[in-house]
Amino acid sequence: MEGNLQIVLASASPRRKELLTQMAISYRILPSSADEIIEDRKPEQVVQRLSRLKATDVSDKLQQQGENNFLVIGADTVVSYQGRIMGKPGSEKEACDMLSCLQGNTHQVYTGVTLCIKIGKNELDWHTFYEKTDVSMYPMTEKEIQDYVATGEPMDKAGAYAIQGLCAVYIQRISGDYNNVVGLPVGRLYQELKKLGFMPEAVSLAECGKEIQS
Amino acid sequence: MEGNLQIVLASASPRRKELLTQMAISYRILPSSADEIIEDRKPEQVVQRLSRLKATDVSDKLQQQGENNFLVIGADTVVSYQGRIMGKPGSEKEACDMLSCLQGNTHQVYTGVTLCIKIGKNELDWHTFYEKTDVSMYPMTEKEIQDYVATGEPMDKAGAYAIQGLCAVYIQRISGDYNNVVGLPVGRLYQELKKLGFMPEAVSLAECGKEIQS
Repeated sequence: MEGNLQIVLASASPRRKELLTQMAISYRILPSSADEIIEDRKPEQVVQRLSRLKATDVSDKLQQQGENNFLVIGADTVVSYQGRIMGKPGSEKEACDMLSCLQGNTHQVYTGVTLCIKIGKNELDWHTFYEKTDVSMYPMTEKEIQDYVATGEPMDKAGAYAIQGLCAVYIQRISGDYNNVVGLPVGRLYQELKKLGFMPEAVSLAECGKEIQS
Repeated sequence: MEGNLQIVLASASPRRKELLTQMAISYRILPSSADEIIEDRKPEQVVQRLSRLKATDVSDKLQQQGENNFLVIGADTVVSYQGRIMGKPGSEKEACDMLSCLQGNTHQVYTGVTLCIKIGKNELDWHTFYEKTDVSMYPMTEKEIQDYVATGEPMDKAGAYAIQGLCAVYIQRISGDYNNVVGLPVGRLYQELKKLGFMPEAVSLAECGKEIQS
């Protein structure tokens, strides 16, 4: 890993934090305050644009603080079903509505990631990519949907479900990266960082991940 | 859920325990002492037979204890790559060897599950099924393999890796149930239990899962 380069996660999501920790890299968290407004019609454009907005917001903050050696990771996740893009539900009713669409069908989960790198006096270096995962859900009864929404779990999740949570019992199969559905495509991210030369020692895996308290 | 029916997990695996807890059902653990000897040539036969052996061992124990109201869950997982069946590695060398085969390629993970049900004076009722998941790994360098094996994580895992652990960075994509790779096909298991009438109230999800201390 680069000497004094700090890795900064531009997200307050506990899921992303957990996944980055799993990658065994040291990082700190500086949540973006960029608005998450969905304007584009194509989900891959939405998530890439929002991930870039988040990374921009945080790299601006860092530069204002006089930092000049960082790698910011911005990420955004949406669910897409038959042309409809689903972010986080605004109400329990909306959560039930989203799950009624998704149950018994196959939908797509898109996560966009932007890496914004600043090394010394060099200009900012930008890399944006996305991953898509197909998710097939078993049919759910109306009561199952209501009971699940009543747990509160869906309320801060794109598409109103957590594949890694209580919704696991309703997931039939996926095609793609599982962690992409959770919120961060860990495999692809690691490979991109490796390509960029930020994983020269194949990660000090033995040290395991640790989050720097900030 | 049936009144006094106790659900018993015939496995000491912390991963299976965690997954069953995620299903929000109450259960206790009684590990099987059946030998895990791989005799069959087809992976789906191996895992189904071993899951049945485990469930048999534990249901025998329960009956000897005078229990007559139980549902035992036995499970077994293997990795299969080009006709070679991989269980847990016997040594670090074998772990490196397994990972050298799997890296850069697509392999299959099979988990067999047996449900053994005893309700009052009725005879034992058996249900066995399996799930298959395809897993594609990114290429790994020799150093990456050695570093990963040095973490110790691979040593008690079929195929010498944990998809939910530090190996996540090397997973490109999967097709099938993710939890099947971890060790228990949570979605399928829930659907089977539902079919058998053991989930009549769509799970008291709101109560969340709890393990009964045994």
